[in-house]
Amino acid sequence: MSKTSTVKGTAVIGQSGGPTAVINQSLVGVIETIASSRAVGQLLGARHGVRGIIEEKFISLNGLSKARLDAIAQTPAAALGSSRDKPDVAYCENIFRIFAKHNVRYFFYIGGNDSADTARIVNEMAAESNYELRVFHIPKTIDNDLRVTDHCPGYGSAARFVASAFIGDDRDVASLPGIKINVVMGRKAGWLTAASALGRGDSKDGPHLVYVPEVAFRLPTFLKDVKRIYSKLGRCQIAVSEGITDETGQPIVVALALKLGHRVERDSHGNVQLSGSGTLGDFLSDFLKGELSSKYKNVRVRADTFGYLQRSFAGCVSPVDAKEARMVGRKAVEFATAGNIDGSVAIKRLKGPGYKVDYVRAELKDVARVIKNMPRTFINKAGNGVTASFINYAMPLVGDLPVSAKLF
Amino acid sequence: MSKTSTVKGTAVIGQSGGPTAVINQSLVGVIETIASSRAVGQLLGARHGVRGIIEEKFISLNGLSKARLDAIAQTPAAALGSSRDKPDVAYCENIFRIFAKHNVRYFFYIGGNDSADTARIVNEMAAESNYELRVFHIPKTIDNDLRVTDHCPGYGSAARFVASAFIGDDRDVASLPGIKINVVMGRKAGWLTAASALGRGDSKDGPHLVYVPEVAFRLPTFLKDVKRIYSKLGRCQIAVSEGITDETGQPIVVALALKLGHRVERDSHGNVQLSGSGTLGDFLSDFLKGELSSKYKNVRVRADTFGYLQRSFAGCVSPVDAKEARMVGRKAVEFATAGNIDGSVAIKRLKGPGYKVDYVRAELKDVARVIKNMPRTFINKAGNGVTASFINYAMPLVGDLPVSAKLF
Repeated sequence: MSKTSTVKGTAVIGQSGGPTAVINQSLVGVIETIASSRAVGQLLGARHGVRGIIEEKFISLNGLSKARLDAIAQTPAAALGSSRDKPDVAYCENIFRIFAKHNVRYFFYIGGNDSADTARIVNEMAAESNYELRVFHIPKTIDNDLRVTDHCPGYGSAARFVASAFIGDDRDVASLPGIKINVVMGRKAGWLTAASALGRGDSKDGPHLVYVPEVAFRLPTFLKDVKRIYSKLGRCQIAVSEGITDETGQPIVVALALKLGHRVERDSHGNVQLSGSGTLGDFLSDFLKGELSSKYKNVRVRADTFGYLQRSFAGCVSPVDAKEARMVGRKAVEFATAGNIDGSVAIKRLKGPGYKVDYVRAELKDVARVIKNMPRTFINKAGNGVTASFINYAMPLVGDLPVSAKLF
Repeated sequence: MSKTSTVKGTAVIGQSGGPTAVINQSLVGVIETIASSRAVGQLLGARHGVRGIIEEKFISLNGLSKARLDAIAQTPAAALGSSRDKPDVAYCENIFRIFAKHNVRYFFYIGGNDSADTARIVNEMAAESNYELRVFHIPKTIDNDLRVTDHCPGYGSAARFVASAFIGDDRDVASLPGIKINVVMGRKAGWLTAASALGRGDSKDGPHLVYVPEVAFRLPTFLKDVKRIYSKLGRCQIAVSEGITDETGQPIVVALALKLGHRVERDSHGNVQLSGSGTLGDFLSDFLKGELSSKYKNVRVRADTFGYLQRSFAGCVSPVDAKEARMVGRKAVEFATAGNIDGSVAIKRLKGPGYKVDYVRAELKDVARVIKNMPRTFINKAGNGVTASFINYAMPLVGDLPVSAKLF
């Protein structure tokens, strides 16, 4: 991609992958910044990501009122529609044909690491074809697993949801004591599950155990952990990532599905469907009931799978996350139009005091495909909890959490 | 129970049944009103309801600061701990022994219809024993199924949670189109499931189908309903009560458990465990996948079971509900001390314009045991949705709902 003068032309924006509560903040950040840019004429929204480009399903995003944009920004999930398509060579040729037809010179793609990879492929094909196109990936994912950036827009709000759920649920489990398993989203990284600990006040508060995909999950260790907490406190609140794996790296839920003879559903990226099913929670719950019932008569064991509410619940947004999601959209346009560059927008955390960030450009290749796991320093030695370092890292991202007070 | 002069003595308060997000508002309403009452000396909180009485597990609730009380009031779930015990004769004799020992003359019990029944039994035994005791039941239940009262404290906040979840989830399902089943709490009444429709903007918004326990659930009708919506809109968002039953009145989830050879867990009231498991959602999801896959290749079907988050999520409270929950606690003390009466506090909705209520006394026997179902006028003719009458009834109870805006 040549980095010459500002090109004039049409811009296309799309949203991709699993939605978040603030993905439309980034969309509106792009729309409002382009509205005041002289480099871009028309702004087209592609319906359902790259799929909308090749099918020429565009809507005009020019001339929208501030009130409408603010309402869109506050609405969870992708207002343009999303997609899980991953363009191959033929798909990209179609994209260019459409781009050329509409004189598209700017392409903004809001998404996770799969989407950054899509942006990278489109970018490289544009360079090979000597087609002057500026491609910017705008990060979003509740999984918080993109490289380079300190954290991902979308994570703070999902983490706020998870932390708020655990605060209330811990009081619920203290009210009617028992063992409670909460399954949290997180295919390969434990960032969101770890957020379950952010609302913890004192050492008796839940979650008492946190299991993430970064540490191999062993049923005997799990049982020992639960027995220890339950015999001490008379209750036990547990956070489990949907993507926990056995020692061979196979997700527990896949092992279960195969064992139960269920079909394993995969998307076009080869990802197994982990969400939208209570399988893992119900299995762990039945396992604990079976193992504990001889020692503890009528032990109360329950499991909740938080599911899609984590990413799309209306009315549980982190103010910091909403602001940053808006800013990465704005910055992408500024970088692409003023700087004549392409890449991905990354958030850089600045040295304190207090929480401050800056927005910088990252190379698409450094963000695409490979994910960022939780560092070992964020997980305790036993592999069943988080460390103070993690709490310090994540706390500024979720905003002030709801009050939780006790009588005893 | 004699209705003579004001008795001086100790008061006991307990919380019972499934917690709500505002059950501690009622607790604090009692505490702060007793603090300014001359009739009551000491106020004791029974830990874990009636269980705490017979085990003499009391904590003093006198002299708590306003700041601490306000923090407790905002915390979800029962701050005193809850219980599902249902006292029989021997149990009640124990209660009286303890009450006499501590000169307890006022008993406030916050709970649902099972708890109203407990209060009724204790009340009748007190009368038979010529023990001067004033018993007040303070209503709470997310199920909204208590008789006499217009609606139940706890319902508004749970309904707000459910409506907010459906608003965001509907946008999520529009982003990545498919069929989405959301299982909502509601053992025998559909009030909470019906609240799924409160955030609906236009006729294309979900939920597109709402199934409540008041109408027998038939799989062939369900399939026909889903096919009709999905072929028209390309997506379908469905609300299902956990307690939907077949034509014989057996809960679908019990029929499934028996079919799968699972043990059916019951509490001491004989209630089957319906929550804390993904069974129903997963069954309906698998059923639809199987039936639709031949016509719609790769149809995306997902199920979420909202679980305990509905009753205890921290930070999703209806302001109206919080205020009313506080008021029923205050009124119970006012009625019991100034009026020298016993009973249950009921909310009476006054004629408009606008939403206004008054608090009145109900007889314990009129609130205990039998539940209040949704009237047929709140459910549409086809039995798969709610009517405008229901929306008008429930809307004032949940507060302003989050914004949801669309680009197309």
